Amino acid sequence: MQRYFALKKEKNYFILPNDDYHHILRVMRGKENEHIEVVYENCVYLCALKNVEQSLTIEIDSLLEKGVKEREMIFCIPYLKETKMDFILQKGTEMGASMFILYPATFSMVKIDDKKLPKKLERWNRILKEASEQSKRTNIPQIQTISHLRDLKNMTGVKFLCSTREKEKTIKKFLQSQSNCDKLIVVIGPEGGLSEAEEKQLNEIGFESITLGNRILRVESVPLFVLSCLNYEFME
Amino acid sequence: MQRYFALKKEKNYFILPNDDYHHILRVMRGKENEHIEVVYENCVYLCALKNVEQSLTIEIDSLLEKGVKEREMIFCIPYLKETKMDFILQKGTEMGASMFILYPATFSMVKIDDKKLPKKLERWNRILKEASEQSKRTNIPQIQTISHLRDLKNMTGVKFLCSTREKEKTIKKFLQSQSNCDKLIVVIGPEGGLSEAEEKQLNEIGFESITLGNRILRVESVPLFVLSCLNYEFME
Repeated sequence: MQRYFALKKEKNYFILPNDDYHHILRVMRGKENEHIEVVYENCVYLCALKNVEQSLTIEIDSLLEKGVKEREMIFCIPYLKETKMDFILQKGTEMGASMFILYPATFSMVKIDDKKLPKKLERWNRILKEASEQSKRTNIPQIQTISHLRDLKNMTGVKFLCSTREKEKTIKKFLQSQSNCDKLIVVIGPEGGLSEAEEKQLNEIGFESITLGNRILRVESVPLFVLSCLNYEFME
Repeated sequence: MQRYFALKKEKNYFILPNDDYHHILRVMRGKENEHIEVVYENCVYLCALKNVEQSLTIEIDSLLEKGVKEREMIFCIPYLKETKMDFILQKGTEMGASMFILYPATFSMVKIDDKKLPKKLERWNRILKEASEQSKRTNIPQIQTISHLRDLKNMTGVKFLCSTREKEKTIKKFLQSQSNCDKLIVVIGPEGGLSEAEEKQLNEIGFESITLGNRILRVESVPLFVLSCLNYEFME
């Protein structure tokens, strides 16, 4: 069943973003009384389409699933070429990332013009929303931008960076040495890796350097590799 | 340094595929005495470009790295749309898959015309070769096709299938219960999953049904998720 995220809940119906009304009526060709799933505040509701001929209303039928609080998995990603960025946002959402923080890395090959950022963010948020619907998540990952890695200073949680310099401490050794992994913050470097200065600065604000092993991964594969490792480590 | 796979070793030089001579001379604009890496029988050699003006020769300079036998990770993948197939072959190579076996699944949305198969295989092999060069592997994954899942009957190793029906036995429980994981064979279903009959038949020839957990992954993400889990499980 198609899943949508509601903006607001009224007495017995939901308000969706405008685009979704269009999607329901024109793309999915929704019929009167047909059912859809609507997510609101981490809960999933079964809803019926009403008044499709005049002014579509999304009537609440029943509560299907009460969301549980998920482990927070926050990924700090450098600005990358559009296709790589889109890929990370889409697949990262599928694999359970809860937030993406974008930063300008020393070796980033892409610079984002401040003026173009609002348009970009709009596009990225759309990707996150669609990937969340498709992978049946009960929340949409957030996206933020920072202008410098030192802005991560005050974040608390289990903090690590994927290093090309560290050879001994694997992600596995690191995760298994942690007692509480409710919130993880991971920094990933660009194609050329993090600069020595960036890595040192991150170490100073509490991010441990870890290695993902011997494989040479493309930058866009790294977040998926890490997310898969996290899912596996916390699997029963 | 650019890496190439040699076809043959002569006394003190290598024979490469024709395309690679073109790549070295025209794309990389190789100069006399410049170095490249050449992989032959799992070993990596430092080689020098000689006689670039007339008839390029790849002279062996020294042995850089003696390949070690890697864990065999064999993936059975249904025929999929071209973009998804390319994606799996490329990223799967990057993450260490040793072989891909392609099969026609009951719910495959793509049928491959036998007449077109040789052309397709040529294309897929090219993707595997390029991804191996880029990720600095010392071997290239093989690719095979089978006409029916029962053709997997005689394969030996740790055998499992990614099921949408199994809810209890996770990939983690399964892997951790195995004593010898030198060779793994994994079956992945198409978008609609494996049919009940296919899953039953695979169970009968020794493939255990396992779940990857609660996330809803796109078909092309599944092999990468599994490969990441395997890399993590066998990491020190």
